[in-house]
Amino acid sequence: MNYISPMAEIIPIHEHKVVFNDAVKYLSELCKEDLQSINTLIFEKLDSSVPLIQEIGKYLILSGGKRLRPILTTSCFHILNNKPKHNINHIGLSAAVEFIHAATLLHDDVVDISKDRRGKLTANEVWGNKTSVLVGDFLFSRSFQLMTKYGTMETLKILSDTSVIISEGEVLEISNDKNLEMNEDTYFQVINGKTASLFSTACQVGGLSGGAKDNELLALKSFGTNFGMTFQLIDDAIDYSSNLNTMGKNIGDDFKEGKITLPIILAYGRSNDKEKQFWQKVISKPNENVNNFNLAKELIIKYKCIEDTVVRARHFADVAIDSLSIFNDSKYKNALIKLIETSVKRLS
Amino acid sequence: MNYISPMAEIIPIHEHKVVFNDAVKYLSELCKEDLQSINTLIFEKLDSSVPLIQEIGKYLILSGGKRLRPILTTSCFHILNNKPKHNINHIGLSAAVEFIHAATLLHDDVVDISKDRRGKLTANEVWGNKTSVLVGDFLFSRSFQLMTKYGTMETLKILSDTSVIISEGEVLEISNDKNLEMNEDTYFQVINGKTASLFSTACQVGGLSGGAKDNELLALKSFGTNFGMTFQLIDDAIDYSSNLNTMGKNIGDDFKEGKITLPIILAYGRSNDKEKQFWQKVISKPNENVNNFNLAKELIIKYKCIEDTVVRARHFADVAIDSLSIFNDSKYKNALIKLIETSVKRLS
Repeated sequence: MNYISPMAEIIPIHEHKVVFNDAVKYLSELCKEDLQSINTLIFEKLDSSVPLIQEIGKYLILSGGKRLRPILTTSCFHILNNKPKHNINHIGLSAAVEFIHAATLLHDDVVDISKDRRGKLTANEVWGNKTSVLVGDFLFSRSFQLMTKYGTMETLKILSDTSVIISEGEVLEISNDKNLEMNEDTYFQVINGKTASLFSTACQVGGLSGGAKDNELLALKSFGTNFGMTFQLIDDAIDYSSNLNTMGKNIGDDFKEGKITLPIILAYGRSNDKEKQFWQKVISKPNENVNNFNLAKELIIKYKCIEDTVVRARHFADVAIDSLSIFNDSKYKNALIKLIETSVKRLS
Repeated sequence: MNYISPMAEIIPIHEHKVVFNDAVKYLSELCKEDLQSINTLIFEKLDSSVPLIQEIGKYLILSGGKRLRPILTTSCFHILNNKPKHNINHIGLSAAVEFIHAATLLHDDVVDISKDRRGKLTANEVWGNKTSVLVGDFLFSRSFQLMTKYGTMETLKILSDTSVIISEGEVLEISNDKNLEMNEDTYFQVINGKTASLFSTACQVGGLSGGAKDNELLALKSFGTNFGMTFQLIDDAIDYSSNLNTMGKNIGDDFKEGKITLPIILAYGRSNDKEKQFWQKVISKPNENVNNFNLAKELIIKYKCIEDTVVRARHFADVAIDSLSIFNDSKYKNALIKLIETSVKRLS
């Protein structure tokens, strides 16, 4: 059985992941100076008269994620190759985006009752839910302070609109908890809120800081959104992958939490009546029997739902790549295209 | 035994409350038109494509609080008696403040595991903690959208700084959970975050919308902060009051949650060694014995901690009243002074 999209080149499975990580690393190298400034600013802005805030903020933000959003902001700033605008600062806005991201992670882990993230205990496991909720609020507030300091009314509008989309997406997701009949478009709205909207915003504020014209800004918005959709679709497919070595994600987590993602939406829609009964039974108690996850995966394989999730991801990836066509060739543009291409192939 | 501050006029106890409610009602009448516009806007902005958000938002915001913050914004707008500024709108900013307030209530109720508020079930009781956290995030995001639409960089700075102060205050409060040795100044920082900072912001955005000069803005900031401190001090004293009819607040809640407020800080500091042992025993398990609350109250009475809390409140009230002295006499100014005066006497 083969999880890889028919469109993918034939590359040994383990190399796909390496290729994506390499693309991230290469971009990080290109943006090295900016990323250092962003890290310094983040560190400064975690300073608070309340020691607990500093402690948790640092635990969370400095725990070594891939820093995908700052990489996007910085790359989109440099892809324009313009003289920077004086009243807007991509370093500050990138830190603002990263604080929003950190705040949503804290709240998500409370909502999902998660115990670990990237192999470390979650903040709610270490300090409890109350603290996570309130420190999340702090990070969110700090983010708006940063936006106000380093941005303009235009970037503030983009960032505050995005915050609304993120929280709407999250409520929409829990509203559809265990709802096997969730519409695919509703699912797209959820993952747009969860991932694509902030990716898009990271790109837009980079572009605006770099003096993007209207059409360039639209292109960066489209690039960020579609890359985000690609990324999340593959993430959701990875949850049903058979390989445990998938960038810190615990296989089967979504299933155990009763989260409805595209592989399940497709599998349920394609199932016969008896199989539908199985889904309805297991989705309400996914942890009752360890074998349930394996049976679910069998149906997902039977109906080619991983392949088709990758096909959807490929669609968004194509749109993302095409959206960059208005920019002149540069090392940043090429590296971003490589990032998208390899992200579709993260699944192993 | 008499809980009333020695400075209070001699008025029958039940009249004190009536007097404060009347002061609120009178101001609401003066600001009636604006308050209607604010309500309409709030209602509009609770609109979301996600039905659950609408439902909870309306449950929470339209459940009939006193609307103290919109009253403050509107009164401070009108006290200036200026031509309104064209690029800033006190109706929109007032709605933004009310959304921040609603978001913090949702998160507070999750953090405090509260079951009812103003005689209604809390949202976390009805819809669960997850939903409350995420809908709180939505309201907070919506608030920033409103600020961006109706405000300026100056009002955005004030509002985002306030959000940071609010969340820092909340983390500071839970960091000092059951800490009987909490410093009185730390307590002031907590209640500044919890209440005074948003009162102050409500006043400042009203002033800025009304074209306040620098000294007028400072005066309104001081008025809001000091009125907020007064209000919260009296609220904290009410928790140890013997009267159950205290504006929807359940007597003894702070004690049961192990929250350290001024009456306890003062009582603990003044207690002898044996009494200190009692405090240390009960604060870790305040619900173990129903009699503990009564014993705690006895010590609070013995050491005149309610009277002294009211004396502190009186200090802030005096500063609040004096800060209004730079404004010309008007019905708004007189009504605000009445509001402060009667707020000190809420305790019955």
